[in-house]
Amino acid sequence: MSATHEVINQPPPLTSFTAADEPAVLEALRRHGAGWAEPEVRELGALAGSPEVQDWARMAEETPPRLRTHDRYGHRVDEVEFHPAWHRLMAAAVEHGLHAAPWADDRPGAHLVRAAKFHLWSQAEAGHGCPVSMTYAAVPALRAQPGLAAAYEPLLTARAYDFGLRPPLEKAGLVAGMSMTEKQGGSDVRANTTEAVPAGDGSYLLTGHKWFTSAPMSDVFLVLAQAPGGLTCFLLPRVLPDGTRNAMRLMRLKDKLGNRSNASSEVEYDRAVAWPVGEVGRGVRTIVEMVNMTRLDCVLGSAAGMRAALRQALHHTTHRRAFGAALIDQPLMRSVLADLAVESEAATTLGLRLAAAVDAAQAGDESEAAFRRLASAVAKYWVCKRGSAHTAEALECLGGNGYVEESGMPRLYREAPLLSIWEGSGNVVALDVLRALTREPAALDAVLAEADAAAGADARLDAAVAGVRAMLPELKDPVGAQLRARVLAERLALVLQGSLLVRHGSPAVADAFCASRLGGEWGHAFGTLPPGTDLGAILDRTRTE
Amino acid sequence: MSATHEVINQPPPLTSFTAADEPAVLEALRRHGAGWAEPEVRELGALAGSPEVQDWARMAEETPPRLRTHDRYGHRVDEVEFHPAWHRLMAAAVEHGLHAAPWADDRPGAHLVRAAKFHLWSQAEAGHGCPVSMTYAAVPALRAQPGLAAAYEPLLTARAYDFGLRPPLEKAGLVAGMSMTEKQGGSDVRANTTEAVPAGDGSYLLTGHKWFTSAPMSDVFLVLAQAPGGLTCFLLPRVLPDGTRNAMRLMRLKDKLGNRSNASSEVEYDRAVAWPVGEVGRGVRTIVEMVNMTRLDCVLGSAAGMRAALRQALHHTTHRRAFGAALIDQPLMRSVLADLAVESEAATTLGLRLAAAVDAAQAGDESEAAFRRLASAVAKYWVCKRGSAHTAEALECLGGNGYVEESGMPRLYREAPLLSIWEGSGNVVALDVLRALTREPAALDAVLAEADAAAGADARLDAAVAGVRAMLPELKDPVGAQLRARVLAERLALVLQGSLLVRHGSPAVADAFCASRLGGEWGHAFGTLPPGTDLGAILDRTRTE
Repeated sequence: MSATHEVINQPPPLTSFTAADEPAVLEALRRHGAGWAEPEVRELGALAGSPEVQDWARMAEETPPRLRTHDRYGHRVDEVEFHPAWHRLMAAAVEHGLHAAPWADDRPGAHLVRAAKFHLWSQAEAGHGCPVSMTYAAVPALRAQPGLAAAYEPLLTARAYDFGLRPPLEKAGLVAGMSMTEKQGGSDVRANTTEAVPAGDGSYLLTGHKWFTSAPMSDVFLVLAQAPGGLTCFLLPRVLPDGTRNAMRLMRLKDKLGNRSNASSEVEYDRAVAWPVGEVGRGVRTIVEMVNMTRLDCVLGSAAGMRAALRQALHHTTHRRAFGAALIDQPLMRSVLADLAVESEAATTLGLRLAAAVDAAQAGDESEAAFRRLASAVAKYWVCKRGSAHTAEALECLGGNGYVEESGMPRLYREAPLLSIWEGSGNVVALDVLRALTREPAALDAVLAEADAAAGADARLDAAVAGVRAMLPELKDPVGAQLRARVLAERLALVLQGSLLVRHGSPAVADAFCASRLGGEWGHAFGTLPPGTDLGAILDRTRTE
Repeated sequence: MSATHEVINQPPPLTSFTAADEPAVLEALRRHGAGWAEPEVRELGALAGSPEVQDWARMAEETPPRLRTHDRYGHRVDEVEFHPAWHRLMAAAVEHGLHAAPWADDRPGAHLVRAAKFHLWSQAEAGHGCPVSMTYAAVPALRAQPGLAAAYEPLLTARAYDFGLRPPLEKAGLVAGMSMTEKQGGSDVRANTTEAVPAGDGSYLLTGHKWFTSAPMSDVFLVLAQAPGGLTCFLLPRVLPDGTRNAMRLMRLKDKLGNRSNASSEVEYDRAVAWPVGEVGRGVRTIVEMVNMTRLDCVLGSAAGMRAALRQALHHTTHRRAFGAALIDQPLMRSVLADLAVESEAATTLGLRLAAAVDAAQAGDESEAAFRRLASAVAKYWVCKRGSAHTAEALECLGGNGYVEESGMPRLYREAPLLSIWEGSGNVVALDVLRALTREPAALDAVLAEADAAAGADARLDAAVAGVRAMLPELKDPVGAQLRARVLAERLALVLQGSLLVRHGSPAVADAFCASRLGGEWGHAFGTLPPGTDLGAILDRTRTE
C-alpha cells in the first residue's frame, strides 16, 4: 500500500496462459488430419504464454539490437549484437520447427502444424518471426538450384539454432535472409542497380546496395542483382567457405516504428561473393517462390497480433469494473469485444486454410496450388490491412492503460502496419490479386470453388459470392480494373472467410460475420454488430478465463 | 555518392511548406466572418512548415522529458526537465494565442481562429498541444468560481510563456493542467478516492493519487477530489503563494506509445492545498466544462494528424517513381490518396464547424450551444476513431520508408490512438452521445437541423439523414440503445460531415463523400471509392506542389 492510497480495481498480470486456447487453431488441425500434432501445439502454446517468455519478449524489445560497425582497434566488423532474450526466442522457435523444418517433415499437415505453431508463438513476440519466416520461405526458392539446395537445405531445416559469423557449412543449423529491395526501387525490383559480375568460377561478385535487409546476422541471403543476363537471384553467405567475411557492409540499422527486437539494416555489397539460384535473368520468378511463403506468414502474424490484442482486451475488461459492473458485462463493450473476436477468428481461419493448401500443393494437388497462388495475395491484402484497425480498437479497450508501453498493447499496435507493408504493401498486393485473377483462370476457379463450398448455407454469403462474380466483367478495362483492385481483394477475402466460418466456425461467429461483413449491417468501426447478434455465444467461445 | 551506388528516386525533404495551404481552413474562416485573421493564420501555417519548427518537433520527441524526483542532495524536487525544443514549441503556441487567448478576445470568430491555428500548428508537433489545450479548456470551468477566475484568467489568457516552479500570481503567464482520473476509476471518476479535507480558511487539503496527470509542470491544475459534501472540482497550484511547493509528488512518467514529447505523470497528493471551483459536490458538472473544450481539440488534433499524414503521402508519391510512372499518377494510388483526402477534409470541416459553434454559443446563441453539446461528442467519437486507420494508410503510401521513424509517419501513427482515448474513449463518448440525445432534445434538434440544412442537394445525404431519424425509436430500449450507440454516433457524424461538405466543400469531395460514406459504395479500407469518382479534382484541391 502506498502512503496516500491503496491500488484497487486493476487487473492481475496476464503472464500465464496458453496461446493454444484459440478454438479455431485446434479445430483446423483436426479438420485437416493433423490432430497428431495437438500435444506439441499445446506445449508450444503454453510456453508462449509463460511468464518467462513474456519477459524475453519485453527484454528483446527494450534492449534492441545494436550495430557495431568497427571493433575497438578500428577494423570493420559489421556485427549486430542482440540481447540474450532474442537468442532464447530464436532458439525456441527453431527447436520447435517454426523455421524450415516442415520441408523435411513427411507427416500429414506438416506445413499446417508449423503454421499453427508460428501463429501461436508469434503472439509472444513478433520481431524474431522475421528471420524464422525467411528461413522457412527460402527453401522453395533455393530448390531452383538443386546443388545448393542439397548442401544448404539440411542445415536450414535442422532444429538447431547456431548463432554467429562462421562458414555456413560448418554450422549445426542456418538462418536465411532476403536482400531484395533498393533505395530507388522498393517493390519495383526491376529498377535494382546492384551489379553481379561473373567471377569465372561459377560465382559472381556483387556490388551495390540494399535499403531494407532484415536479420543481417543471418548465415545466407537470397539477393537480387543485375547479372549480364538480367536480374538474377543469388545465394550470398555472410562468411565465405574459407572463414573470411563476405563484403557485406552494414551501414546502419533502421529505427523502426515496431518490430524493434529485429535488426533491419541498410547494406552495401562491395564485390561480395554469391552463387546464382535458378536461371540467370529470371531472378523475380525465383525469389517470388520465397515471397509467396513469407506472405503466408504475414497473414499468420497479423492473425497472431489480433489474437494477442484480443486476449489482452478480454483480460482487462474481465477484471476491470466501471460504473458498477465489470467492463465485459456492459453491452457496448460486449459488442466491441465480440466484433474483435469475429475479426480475429476470420483471420486465423483463413491463414490456416492457406497453410493447409501448402501441404496439399506439396502433395501434388494442382487445384490447391492454384488456390494458394491467389488466396495468399487476397489474404495478405485483407487480413494484414485489418491488423492496425483491430489492434487500435483492442488497445482502446484498456483505456489510457492501453496507451502505455508496459501494457504490451503499443507493441502490438506498432507491429501491425509492418505486416501490411512488407512482402508487398496494399496496392502492390491488390494489383497482384488482379494479375493472378486475370492471368490464371485456375486460381480464380479454385478460390470461387472454395467460396461456393458453403453455397446455400447463408443467403448473405451467397449474395456476396454472386456480387464478386458480377464484378469480374468490370475488370476488362485496365484502368478501371486497377481502381477496383482493392475492392475486389477485400470482397474475395470476405467471401473466403465467410465460407470457411459458415462451414467450420461456431454458428454465432459465422452469423455475426455474414450479417456484418457480408450483409452490410455494420459500421466502419468495431462495436457495430447488428441487433440480434449472439454476443454471449461469441464471447463464450473466445473467453479463456 | 556512396562507394557502391548513387542514391536516386528518393523524394526531397519536405521541410518548407505552409500548413495554411488546406483549402477547408481558409474557407471556413471566411464563411464565419473571421477572414480578418487570414494573415496571421497564414503566418502561423508557414511557421509550422518551416525547417526550424520541423527540427524542434523531432528533437522534442527524440529527447523526451525526464523526471527528476530528487536533487543531488537528496531533497525531493519532483521536477520534469524538457529539451529546449519543447519550450520553443510552447512559447510559439502561447505567443500565437493557441492557449486561452480567445477567452479575452472580442473579435468575431476568435474561437474559430484559434481552432484553425491549433489545427495548423498541431501538424508540426502534437505533444505540446496537450498543455495548450488544457489551458484553453480550463477557463470556462474556472469561471464557475468568479473570484479565482478574476485572479487567474488574465494570466491564463496572457500571451506569455513563463516556465518554472514559481508562485502563479507572480508569473507573466500560466499553463493549466487537469488531474482527474485515478488508478481504480479511469473515466468512472465517481470512484475517485482522493480526499479533500477543509482546512478552515476556505482551502482544502487533498490526499490521494492520480493515474494520468499530463503536463505536471503546469502552474495550476483542476483536480477532482471527494470533499465531505461530495466529489468537487479544485484549483491546485504547483507552488503555493508563499513560494513553497505544494505537496504534489510525481511518482513516474508514463512510457507512452506516442505523445512522447509531453510528460504524463502518476501523481500523489499528500495534504496538497487547493481551492474549490464551483459548487461543492458538483465537481463533475464543473469539470465537464473543461472536458467539452478539450474534446474539441481532440477533433482538431485528429484532423491535424490526418492532414499532416496526407501531406507526407502526397509529397512522397509525387516524387517517387515505380514501374515507370510517378506513384501519384497510378490509378490505385490515386484512389487511395483521394480517399484519404476526403476523410481529411471531412474531419477538418467538422472540427472547425464545432469551433464556430463555440463563438456563437459565447455570443448567446442557445441553439448553437445545444448543437455543440451533442456534435462535440459525435465528432470526438468519429473523427478520433478514424485517426488511426487514416494514418496507417497514409504511412503505407510511403512503403517501408513510412515504417522508419525518420520519415515522421510513425510519430503521427503513434499519436493517433491517444486522441480517441483521452477525454473519453470510444464507448464512453458514444454513450455520452446517447445521453445527450435522449436527455437534451434541443441538442438533437440542432444537430438534425444542421444535417437538414443541405436537404435536397444530394439524395444519398437525404436518405442517410432519414436513416438516422428512423433509428431514433430503437433507442427506447436501454440495452438496445447502448448496443446501437456506436452506430448512431458514426451515422450522426457522417450526416453532419456530409451536410457541411455538400454545402461548403468542393463538389468532387462532397460527391465522393456521399457516394462512399453515405451511399455505401465503399470498402472497409481506403482506396475503394466507387467508379466515376472525380479523383483528379479531389487531388487537384489537395495537392500543394
